[in-house]
Amino acid sequence: MINRFLKKWRDPKERRLFYALLGGKMGGVALLFLLIAGIPAFFGTKVYAAEETVSYINPINTMWTLIAAFLVFFMQSGFMMLEAGFARSRETINILLEGIVDTCLCGILFWAWGFGWMFGAGNGLIGNQFYFLHGIPDTYGSSGVATLAFFLFQFAFADCTSTITSGAMVGRTGFIGDLLYSFVVSGFIYPILGHWAWGPDGWLALMQPAAFRDFAGSTVIHTIGGMIALAGAIALGPRLGRKFKRDGGGPMPGHDMTIAAVGTVILWFGWYGFNPGSTLSAMDLQGIGRVATNTTLAACAGGLSALFFVFPRTKIWDCGMTCNGILAGLVAITCPCYWVSPGGSIIIGVIAGVLVVLATDLLEHWRIDDPVGAWPVHGINGIWGTISLGLFATGQYGLPSPTGMDSSVVVKGLFYGGGMTQLMAQTTGNVIIGIAALVSGLILMYAVKATGHLRVSTEGELQGLDVHEHGGSAYPELEAVTQVR
Amino acid sequence: MINRFLKKWRDPKERRLFYALLGGKMGGVALLFLLIAGIPAFFGTKVYAAEETVSYINPINTMWTLIAAFLVFFMQSGFMMLEAGFARSRETINILLEGIVDTCLCGILFWAWGFGWMFGAGNGLIGNQFYFLHGIPDTYGSSGVATLAFFLFQFAFADCTSTITSGAMVGRTGFIGDLLYSFVVSGFIYPILGHWAWGPDGWLALMQPAAFRDFAGSTVIHTIGGMIALAGAIALGPRLGRKFKRDGGGPMPGHDMTIAAVGTVILWFGWYGFNPGSTLSAMDLQGIGRVATNTTLAACAGGLSALFFVFPRTKIWDCGMTCNGILAGLVAITCPCYWVSPGGSIIIGVIAGVLVVLATDLLEHWRIDDPVGAWPVHGINGIWGTISLGLFATGQYGLPSPTGMDSSVVVKGLFYGGGMTQLMAQTTGNVIIGIAALVSGLILMYAVKATGHLRVSTEGELQGLDVHEHGGSAYPELEAVTQVR
Amino acid sequence: MINRFLKKWRDPKERRLFYALLGGKMGGVALLFLLIAGIPAFFGTKVYAAEETVSYINPINTMWTLIAAFLVFFMQSGFMMLEAGFARSRETINILLEGIVDTCLCGILFWAWGFGWMFGAGNGLIGNQFYFLHGIPDTYGSSGVATLAFFLFQFAFADCTSTITSGAMVGRTGFIGDLLYSFVVSGFIYPILGHWAWGPDGWLALMQPAAFRDFAGSTVIHTIGGMIALAGAIALGPRLGRKFKRDGGGPMPGHDMTIAAVGTVILWFGWYGFNPGSTLSAMDLQGIGRVATNTTLAACAGGLSALFFVFPRTKIWDCGMTCNGILAGLVAITCPCYWVSPGGSIIIGVIAGVLVVLATDLLEHWRIDDPVGAWPVHGINGIWGTISLGLFATGQYGLPSPTGMDSSVVVKGLFYGGGMTQLMAQTTGNVIIGIAALVSGLILMYAVKATGHLRVSTEGELQGLDVHEHGGSAYPELEAVTQVR
Repeated sequence: MINRFLKKWRDPKERRLFYALLGGKMGGVALLFLLIAGIPAFFGTKVYAAEETVSYINPINTMWTLIAAFLVFFMQSGFMMLEAGFARSRETINILLEGIVDTCLCGILFWAWGFGWMFGAGNGLIGNQFYFLHGIPDTYGSSGVATLAFFLFQFAFADCTSTITSGAMVGRTGFIGDLLYSFVVSGFIYPILGHWAWGPDGWLALMQPAAFRDFAGSTVIHTIGGMIALAGAIALGPRLGRKFKRDGGGPMPGHDMTIAAVGTVILWFGWYGFNPGSTLSAMDLQGIGRVATNTTLAACAGGLSALFFVFPRTKIWDCGMTCNGILAGLVAITCPCYWVSPGGSIIIGVIAGVLVVLATDLLEHWRIDDPVGAWPVHGINGIWGTISLGLFATGQYGLPSPTGMDSSVVVKGLFYGGGMTQLMAQTTGNVIIGIAALVSGLILMYAVKATGHLRVSTEGELQGLDVHEHGGSAYPELEAVTQVR
Repeated sequence: MINRFLKKWRDPKERRLFYALLGGKMGGVALLFLLIAGIPAFFGTKVYAAEETVSYINPINTMWTLIAAFLVFFMQSGFMMLEAGFARSRETINILLEGIVDTCLCGILFWAWGFGWMFGAGNGLIGNQFYFLHGIPDTYGSSGVATLAFFLFQFAFADCTSTITSGAMVGRTGFIGDLLYSFVVSGFIYPILGHWAWGPDGWLALMQPAAFRDFAGSTVIHTIGGMIALAGAIALGPRLGRKFKRDGGGPMPGHDMTIAAVGTVILWFGWYGFNPGSTLSAMDLQGIGRVATNTTLAACAGGLSALFFVFPRTKIWDCGMTCNGILAGLVAITCPCYWVSPGGSIIIGVIAGVLVVLATDLLEHWRIDDPVGAWPVHGINGIWGTISLGLFATGQYGLPSPTGMDSSVVVKGLFYGGGMTQLMAQTTGNVIIGIAALVSGLILMYAVKATGHLRVSTEGELQGLDVHEHGGSAYPELEAVTQVR
Repeated sequence: MINRFLKKWRDPKERRLFYALLGGKMGGVALLFLLIAGIPAFFGTKVYAAEETVSYINPINTMWTLIAAFLVFFMQSGFMMLEAGFARSRETINILLEGIVDTCLCGILFWAWGFGWMFGAGNGLIGNQFYFLHGIPDTYGSSGVATLAFFLFQFAFADCTSTITSGAMVGRTGFIGDLLYSFVVSGFIYPILGHWAWGPDGWLALMQPAAFRDFAGSTVIHTIGGMIALAGAIALGPRLGRKFKRDGGGPMPGHDMTIAAVGTVILWFGWYGFNPGSTLSAMDLQGIGRVATNTTLAACAGGLSALFFVFPRTKIWDCGMTCNGILAGLVAITCPCYWVSPGGSIIIGVIAGVLVVLATDLLEHWRIDDPVGAWPVHGINGIWGTISLGLFATGQYGLPSPTGMDSSVVVKGLFYGGGMTQLMAQTTGNVIIGIAALVSGLILMYAVKATGHLRVSTEGELQGLDVHEHGGSAYPELEAVTQVR
């Protein structure tokens, strides 16, 4: 064969033919490249389009994250309404101003170092980047979401944590005390503990054999917030005149159920940013639909379960407890919402609705005064929700990614044949962060107490925080009337 | 010619030349395929991008639908505020809890079978799929929207219907009665009647020669809700002490116009999910802009028209009626918003604002007590809006589709030269669904009445529903004061 | 060489070879074109995808603009709550109805000619297109946003301006007076002055050497609104019984701090539509993230700065002033938000929080009664924000465009080495529009005063506007109680 080839090669005609063919072929290839390069011109905007195309992912996901951030931010008004409604009118301005100032403080701290400690690279325990938002990349990590949009989303989350804390401390905390503990919660406890679970190199996020998974923060937001709230309520002691059930008393009534109930609906609405937004990806269209549906069904189930669990005991259709049941369902589904089925979400919500009632009983039994039920809602159901992932994760879903679901990792719980692995990871992560939050919360609250600013004076409390610290009642025209009582 | 070819073929040189050319050509074609397959590598992500590209449509439309669903859900807080504000303080918790529990119940029922009966395939009368959300496809029908996102959107719609019902029944319905009728409305009446118009094989949707068209639900949500509300008000009778104009009385005042008016604005805000979201497509950018603008202008026109229509009669600038005028405009534009012009929307709104006042007069004349005006707003203007499509559709617009407007069908009304065809379809669909809703509503309400749970006891009503069934007033600090009255 | 070619050409073999090669090549090219044309079929939807691709930009940006429009619209409920909360209960319905009717009126006027005068082409002083939305293009200008979506966004902006005006006129303006001035503000002053800055050929927008830049309207919305508000307060005089500090009095207390504070948070939430939405582009993902973050940080800084600036003077933690500090920060950042750094935003916000307090003092000193602080918040901080761009613009950012940031123009302020150019442009634009607004506002308000409709009768004012003009109190059950005071 080589011989035949060489023989042919020696024939000048054949050689010329070969050169001609080769030259033609090379010209053809050149033409081909020209044509391919010319496709965009020929089809209008082809290569432009193709290059352009890739960049749709980041705008779409950034828009999604940013709108979600707005919704989460809007939860502040829900928290303020719920807490004010469940409190007495005399401490209303205090609650409103605490909610507002808390937000302002959290924004500045998260800008200065909170975001960097939580989401910057560093070590397993704390991040060490992005101080004053310097040195941030255009898009955060592999999410492709504009870093400042991600910052806003995470600021709104951080803000929730310190607002949750204030719920259990309503009615007797001095405003300087509020400022002090908010500073520490937003600036220190939250970003450091949060880094463990959500930081790029957080040690719980990288735990083996299974990573600790907390989709939208049953642990990171709610367990932390709820546990510090408990620490605050313990350090403060109950409001003057608050008698517990075993002493023949009961919860003090709030002053406005309308704003409390509307606040609950606003919180539910905001949760549609909280949970579905946590995909950081609208390209994962199945994911955001599933998360939104699961969030809804858990809330529905939690509300009905609390309603019907309380009725036989009290013979009243209890609006406040139904609101807290809804919130309990929402808190519980926050961690597992991406990985469970609609049916699983309903079961998780039903249990949450019962737990919130029992935990309220427990506080009553312990003689701890938590005027809005921050610990039963956020603390206990943060725990339940985190663990429920280890039970109900169906094993069908991986992780959200900028282009859709990444199926290379799959999360499967005990009830779906996943064994104990994920359950152990969830329990480990939640217990460690929960204890760290409670302990650091107790240290914080007793430290603030030592400054003398945690609890308002007896005189101030009897007078009402609003008149004492804020220059007057929230409802000046009614002041005279309600004062009479 | 064949001879020439055969002669050439016999020449070995020519044959070699042919083989060479053929071989080269085949090599070239192979190279070409390799190159084309290699384009993505060469231009970064070309083919990936191109394949990826197609999938932008579904994420964009799913994001749009989901955000719209959140806004529609948020309408619940608007309904609660509007209804509570228009009612007396003594029944406030009842209204709030009804709104909340209704939502919870609706979510569970829509998951269990409501969604399947309404949006599953079956026959013209009822769907028969998707029980417990099993067997749902990734995306719903030809919309390309993630099915669970579509589910959430439709749940929020369903939820509105039963909340509308409760509006006319405020102040004298027992809570168990609330639960019973809500169960039937959300679980049976709404999904079945809704299937007729919006189901994939609903008989009104497939009606000939023109399909019954109800873009965002003037009939499906508002006529149904308003007619069942009327049935409820008839079955209940008026509140104790409610005297009608012809008997020298008039409407009982509400207790908080602030929350009523703010609730109206929240409903208006939520309507931006209701109507523009009903395209299920943000790719139809002209459509969503047009729907949002038409919705706005009809609301503006309805508010002004009610304001100025009432003033000459009462010499007062009536805030409550202006709120209802805005809502009337919104209800009316809900059906035709995709197909009419901005100018047409204003005319539709002006008429709606007059109709709501006249319908309120009619109820007063009939001695029917509808505390918030649910029937004048939703019932009557649901009818007017549905019919108005047959009059004002301009014939410029087709149907929204995942990629933009599908112009293969065009909707044209009487005033734009479309003749009676669409008008007849609209009238047929609305009358049939309206009568079905009213009749089933009457059967339902009288059945609940027969259980003895529809109306609270006289004692309970005089005491106020909140104290009687919910353990206390919504405003405990004011209870003593308002009790005096 | 030509010789060699001609010699070859004369050889029939060579000629045949040439023809064969040429024929083969042409066949190849034909095949190539066929293949390229066939790529879509081969890779599914390739060319379709590429052509489709380009059209994603407009839907994405339209969706973004429309959602932003919804959020801006929602600010109406925030304004209503804030203004009602800061006012006495006796004028609550008046405030609510003014907010609502104002919106309705603005919608109709903006449809009829406002949008055309402001955003139509015409000359430097006024636009002359788009009457009744006739003749509008599918997408607005080079934005690619559906014109009707852009219309809705701009309607919501216009609506804010006239609502801001009403804030300073609370409690003593007759409802017909409200209607009259709202008609002129929404229909004449705002669209004409707005055209100067934002019209396609507005003279300030085209000013040399540097264009006047007002990203989201510190001047166009807030300075105009605040200056007309001041004109209204001057023309009206203070409420009966309002004594100023130098006369031994002080501000009259509001009636509900809860709705005022929640209204503030709603306004903050709505500002996330106002500022980030003003890019009209979500493709500019860095831009929307940066604008949202800057907006947040300025609000936080403004709130804290007002809180801590007031405390040493009054020894109270002032909720109302903190709310106004937040709003002041938001107003100030509205103009520069696209071009400044997060750190710059904080400084701008801190100064805004101080300015709002000092401007409130100034009004008190001038004996001007502005019940909600409309001029300190919107007027003064509109000025400050507009000028701050000339100081703090970093020079890193150009202009938002449909595909991302357009860097061909760069905005640089004094402190970043940009010299006085931009600062002069900002000062020029703001001073001219500010004076034009104040002068036209004074003419308007004194003209309405001349009709006798601006201020309600003394009798009506003492009775309260609600009873006098709107048929009763916003809180009928409390009327008796509060009447006692």
